[in-house]
Amino acid sequence: MKTKVCRKAHFNAAHRLHNEFLSEEENQRLFGKCNNPNFHGHNYELIVCVEGEIDPKTGFVMDMKTLETLIKIHIEEAFDHKNLNLEVVDFQELNPTAEHIAQVIYNRLRPHIQESLKMEITLYETPRNFVVFSE
Amino acid sequence: MKTKVCRKAHFNAAHRLHNEFLSEEENQRLFGKCNNPNFHGHNYELIVCVEGEIDPKTGFVMDMKTLETLIKIHIEEAFDHKNLNLEVVDFQELNPTAEHIAQVIYNRLRPHIQESLKMEITLYETPRNFVVFSE
Amino acid sequence: MKTKVCRKAHFNAAHRLHNEFLSEEENQRLFGKCNNPNFHGHNYELIVCVEGEIDPKTGFVMDMKTLETLIKIHIEEAFDHKNLNLEVVDFQELNPTAEHIAQVIYNRLRPHIQESLKMEITLYETPRNFVVFSE
Amino acid sequence: MKTKVCRKAHFNAAHRLHNEFLSEEENQRLFGKCNNPNFHGHNYELIVCVEGEIDPKTGFVMDMKTLETLIKIHIEEAFDHKNLNLEVVDFQELNPTAEHIAQVIYNRLRPHIQESLKMEITLYETPRNFVVFSE
Amino acid sequence: MKTKVCRKAHFNAAHRLHNEFLSEEENQRLFGKCNNPNFHGHNYELIVCVEGEIDPKTGFVMDMKTLETLIKIHIEEAFDHKNLNLEVVDFQELNPTAEHIAQVIYNRLRPHIQESLKMEITLYETPRNFVVFSE
Amino acid sequence: MKTKVCRKAHFNAAHRLHNEFLSEEENQRLFGKCNNPNFHGHNYELIVCVEGEIDPKTGFVMDMKTLETLIKIHIEEAFDHKNLNLEVVDFQELNPTAEHIAQVIYNRLRPHIQESLKMEITLYETPRNFVVFSE
Repeated sequence: MKTKVCRKAHFNAAHRLHNEFLSEEENQRLFGKCNNPNFHGHNYELIVCVEGEIDPKTGFVMDMKTLETLIKIHIEEAFDHKNLNLEVVDFQELNPTAEHIAQVIYNRLRPHIQESLKMEITLYETPRNFVVFSE
Repeated sequence: MKTKVCRKAHFNAAHRLHNEFLSEEENQRLFGKCNNPNFHGHNYELIVCVEGEIDPKTGFVMDMKTLETLIKIHIEEAFDHKNLNLEVVDFQELNPTAEHIAQVIYNRLRPHIQESLKMEITLYETPRNFVVFSE
Repeated sequence: MKTKVCRKAHFNAAHRLHNEFLSEEENQRLFGKCNNPNFHGHNYELIVCVEGEIDPKTGFVMDMKTLETLIKIHIEEAFDHKNLNLEVVDFQELNPTAEHIAQVIYNRLRPHIQESLKMEITLYETPRNFVVFSE
Repeated sequence: MKTKVCRKAHFNAAHRLHNEFLSEEENQRLFGKCNNPNFHGHNYELIVCVEGEIDPKTGFVMDMKTLETLIKIHIEEAFDHKNLNLEVVDFQELNPTAEHIAQVIYNRLRPHIQESLKMEITLYETPRNFVVFSE
Repeated sequence: MKTKVCRKAHFNAAHRLHNEFLSEEENQRLFGKCNNPNFHGHNYELIVCVEGEIDPKTGFVMDMKTLETLIKIHIEEAFDHKNLNLEVVDFQELNPTAEHIAQVIYNRLRPHIQESLKMEITLYETPRNFVVFSE
Repeated sequence: MKTKVCRKAHFNAAHRLHNEFLSEEENQRLFGKCNNPNFHGHNYELIVCVEGEIDPKTGFVMDMKTLETLIKIHIEEAFDHKNLNLEVVDFQELNPTAEHIAQVIYNRLRPHIQESLKMEITLYETPRNFVVFSE
């Protein structure tokens, strides 16, 4: 049997899809209105799941309050009400697509979560678009 | 009896809360992290309602497809994937708070909707914050 | 002060928008793909609200279980998994638009709810279209 | 024109519907399984709205962060993870129905919100049952 | 690591559960009110996911706008406001259960999506019933 | 190809996180406000999925009405409007965390569902916390 516990969180941010190693024309062709140099933004809904054994002492795979706090410190405080391209160092050379944002969230949280727990990051960019990044 | 028909729509945009007639300190005090000069953004969820008589010929207060098209032309095409402060003329001297965005949406749609219909604009800035602007 | 209590319910049904007193061309022009003679359908989400005084004995404006039962008997059993045009007598000569369905729901429930309570019917035809019919 | 701004919040609590001035039989008849002496519970979803003029300086009817803080202090800290009947003084002699909980929330918040703003409290007891208590 | 990107879409349709190779009695026994010969209908919510490598040039597993367009052309235009039994050729001899509709959606989209991407179709028939069809 | 069908259900209940084999201090440290001896409560949202072959006769992996009935009898009637710690025998010596509640739901349903079908239990304790327990 497998047990996975999940916690939802939220941040909103501005971003622009842009690959600095490509021409303006190529960027425009690839990213269309998402390439707007003045930025646009989203309410990102985030779900972080961890999968592992239920600890018989607590009945928890992981304490959700601990997970909530880790998300707050490492993700919400870094991303919320920010311009991802200009203000979040991870995106200095990385295009902030939903796929990459989920990957960055994974990389930021992984060191703080017990290695034996498998991680899964779900990120809604809009209510109609989302990505799942998982081990 | 009253009959109101409503249509939901969606756009996402960057913005910054800022009153250009106030000092930087005052802006920071009033708007906090929403005053970030690099902008942040939201998925705005919009509900436009019109209230009036049911037309006995159609059974409609107003054809929802017409309302959908009006929202698409006058709101979504103007606001979606835009920076509200820099790219939407209505906010050149108007702080793009949720209250003001709802008011601007009302002003843009009002001329295109039959005068006898009462209008109501609901705008979700995040899943937890929303405004209702109505006649 | 005003107190309103509301109960959600659900039914799904087939329908077709059609005014039998108009020509096929006029019906097609007015209702487009909603006029499909083979029908289409919806998951209707219904919210029935009643507004009145809080009874000091119960702390209720109206017992929600009673309201739930009334909706089940008079609406769900009559409409759920039905073809509204062919199988619900109220629509024999009435075009089953969301506006008219809300009105019919009101007319069916009104006699069973205390006269002193003001009623309001909200009907979602899709997650993006809804109507509110109220006293 | 009217402008209303709204903020959602959340708390979960145990409760039991019970009128101490009535017999056990009468309580059982009126409240059924909600009268369970061992309590049951809910995730209450709360929406607090205030209606008033848009302040031309801020573009706000009321700062949502202020409203969020007032709800946190006066409602969430008092109600969250509590037994409403046993631990919240307002319900010592008041049956904690959704109607009464909304009324108590109103009474607790009213002194902290500018008198000129009209208030409206919406409380979801379950995703299918809710009440609206308003001036 | 695995990366999956998902896009939501929507269509509404009439249908009837019926296996033409069985008797009326057997159909009635198996499908109950879903066997209604006059049809009923649903708002189908569809989620199409594709799993694969993130393209370092775009930061995309697949461009969501391309996926949105494929769903529009091959699914929404074929199914929306239709009677699945009478008007969609795939169901001429196939009972339009949620399981089969998801399978048909998969079969229609598969040829248009890069072979290296793993596909997953989630279909909500109602907010309470859904199926997941995946490779 | 894999096909999974899922059914949502709902119950609300009071509970308290507590491990009777630990001291009061240890319980308080581990479970914080969830350890409140007067209980708190939740609206639990439950999703039960079964995965298997589509039966060519019915087009079903499993009849959703049968699954709905099994959930009603074995879960809703046992848990709804109950105090999980005091009134549900499975939790007499088992701490009712979301993980354990999902496990108990699995154990109660497993004997009634065809062995060849793989089961998955998703349980939302709040809209922000959930667990997935699966084979």
